Amino acid sequence: MEYKIALIPGDGIGPEIVSEAKKVLDKVCEKYHHTFTYSEVLLGGASIDVHGVPLTDEAIATAKASDAVLMGSIGGDARTSPWYKLEPSKRPEAGLLAIRKALNLFANLRPAYLYKELEEACPIKKEVIGEDGFDMIIVRELTGGLYFGERKTIEEDGVKKAIDTLSYNENEIRRIAIKAFDIAMKRRKKVTSVDKANVLDSSRLWRKVVEEVAKDYPEVTLEHMLVDNCAMQLVHDPGQFDVILTENMFGDILSDEASMVTGSIGMLSSASLNETKFGLYEPSHGSAPDIAGQNKANPIATILSAAMLLRYSLNLDEEADAVEAAVQKVLTDGYRTGDIMSEGCKAVGTKEMGDLIAAAV
Amino acid sequence: MEYKIALIPGDGIGPEIVSEAKKVLDKVCEKYHHTFTYSEVLLGGASIDVHGVPLTDEAIATAKASDAVLMGSIGGDARTSPWYKLEPSKRPEAGLLAIRKALNLFANLRPAYLYKELEEACPIKKEVIGEDGFDMIIVRELTGGLYFGERKTIEEDGVKKAIDTLSYNENEIRRIAIKAFDIAMKRRKKVTSVDKANVLDSSRLWRKVVEEVAKDYPEVTLEHMLVDNCAMQLVHDPGQFDVILTENMFGDILSDEASMVTGSIGMLSSASLNETKFGLYEPSHGSAPDIAGQNKANPIATILSAAMLLRYSLNLDEEADAVEAAVQKVLTDGYRTGDIMSEGCKAVGTKEMGDLIAAAV
Ligand SMILES: CC(C)[C@H](C(=O)O)[C@@H](O)C(=O)O
Ligand SMILES: CC(C)[C@H](C(=O)O)[C@@H](O)C(=O)O
Repeated sequence: MEYKIALIPGDGIGPEIVSEAKKVLDKVCEKYHHTFTYSEVLLGGASIDVHGVPLTDEAIATAKASDAVLMGSIGGDARTSPWYKLEPSKRPEAGLLAIRKALNLFANLRPAYLYKELEEACPIKKEVIGEDGFDMIIVRELTGGLYFGERKTIEEDGVKKAIDTLSYNENEIRRIAIKAFDIAMKRRKKVTSVDKANVLDSSRLWRKVVEEVAKDYPEVTLEHMLVDNCAMQLVHDPGQFDVILTENMFGDILSDEASMVTGSIGMLSSASLNETKFGLYEPSHGSAPDIAGQNKANPIATILSAAMLLRYSLNLDEEADAVEAAVQKVLTDGYRTGDIMSEGCKAVGTKEMGDLIAAAV
Repeated sequence: MEYKIALIPGDGIGPEIVSEAKKVLDKVCEKYHHTFTYSEVLLGGASIDVHGVPLTDEAIATAKASDAVLMGSIGGDARTSPWYKLEPSKRPEAGLLAIRKALNLFANLRPAYLYKELEEACPIKKEVIGEDGFDMIIVRELTGGLYFGERKTIEEDGVKKAIDTLSYNENEIRRIAIKAFDIAMKRRKKVTSVDKANVLDSSRLWRKVVEEVAKDYPEVTLEHMLVDNCAMQLVHDPGQFDVILTENMFGDILSDEASMVTGSIGMLSSASLNETKFGLYEPSHGSAPDIAGQNKANPIATILSAAMLLRYSLNLDEEADAVEAAVQKVLTDGYRTGDIMSEGCKAVGTKEMGDLIAAAV
């Protein structure tokens, strides 16, 4: 079959890791007789350097014309990169927010689990986690809330005042809740909906709509948790979670915390989906500008994101399984990039890791 | 000397733990020849039960007429307590937000450190934390931001929409930043200011004002960190932090995460201060309704909050030292409540722990 894949190399380690993921996709093409046509989309700093803005209409059109998008990472080091001298709406992250909105990617799925081979790298004590480890997925609303609300900075009696607005309507809450419950049905059938309903109106509406949606899923256990408590529980007892459903900002904070709790942030993929099969896939980690271009970055999260792309956007389950199995094999064989290195394992760079995984497909 | 202390027993385990802290304060009176006059203030569920509202004007007046307030904890189990059938503005937490505003308690200080005696209880691996452990204090803005913004729920074309507003002005940011830098000067002279300046206008104003304040403290190192990254760093490398300065909601989430990272949440005190010597002191933990009234709660966080009260609001440093030393002695002697129990230690209940500490003052 023929598929169109848009690639967003992005900034920092982005180009290196996307290039390894492409290597693996090319191997999939060869082995399973598909044709993938790639187009490149500039986003973030890479786009600022060429076009002066972090996202162009043309880039959006190219992304929309494809079956799915695979992204590396965007943004640079805010302390040193010239991009951060620009006004906020022109900086790399603005492009990321804009493309999410333009493609209507309202559902961000971020799995966070303890990787058997990498248990040593997990910062939490074994006795806290327990025998069964943990395996959760965070379903974060991605196109609403504080990150997309009206904002302004005004002056009152000579004093500057900045205002951001958090809003959600019932439809926005319902569609993301449905995603979370659908996912829970294929997993351990538990949804933990996280909010701050003891303070915020938006959280109270959130809770009400989530409860309505839950009625259509009698097999799924729904639990509500306050965001401050959830930040504690992720450290205290991560094994209690199956699907965490939450709004944009809480999801931003909690999913980063959860991926650090796994100790394997270089291994975690993510998907951002709209109402169709279309999606944008990217590693859960950032652009790590400090190690960019040094053949040190771990490409596995991006390669596993490519596997998610095969599975969810292209319906190529067998191919996705093959990529995941290849990653598993290379880990079992003891190959590790620096971030996940441990005693007795074989150190490899970004490219070698990509080669090994492609060869194992 | 004579001092007036208002006590807020509150809900859940609140009354038990405040009663033990009072026992310790009484011992301080006796030994150092002070007179503490206590008045009781009803807040939260305890106030709803009597007055139908979580905070009365009379309660505010009593608190204001005192030199300082010592609080247990407020709120009940949202799943079962009848308070949570009330409309949000009548529930226990509304009283807590209202008293913070009424007393202008804009600065919430929450220390989070690894307790030497309780290292075993810390969920993070020893090798992640390192030899030096960690010792940070979170300075959370407490009367602004999303928790005190305008909010409303409207209907647009038959679809409900809820809106919360996050605002900060320069003066609100400046006064809390000054607190943080003043505290840093007495500690390791590092401030990590946490925001989401890559997205929010309020965070960009926050960053600007914090940088202005920093100019008056040339000895203090200022660092900015994004909130999602901070949620990761607290798990990954808590030892990097000295003073964390942040706005209300981020502070809520991060301070709870940090106290769980210590493994000793039953030991951590907090202070909420205004521009004067006046303050409200309370444990960092919640009202734990599941163990209320069973003589199981750990009163140490409340007793250490009383020590903070002696030090900051009453200027009684020697007395505060004595209380802290008494807690230390009882721990060294091996006494533990259930939450911090470990092998070879002596199990005691709430009352016995209070007795032991009072006796050691
Ligand atoms: C770069 C930033 C705008 C973005 C976000 O906060 O959504 C990032 O942190 C993420 O989680 O994808
Ligand atoms: C009860 C609630 C309103 C409160 C808050 O979020 O401020 C609590 O979580 C806290 O941190 O003191």
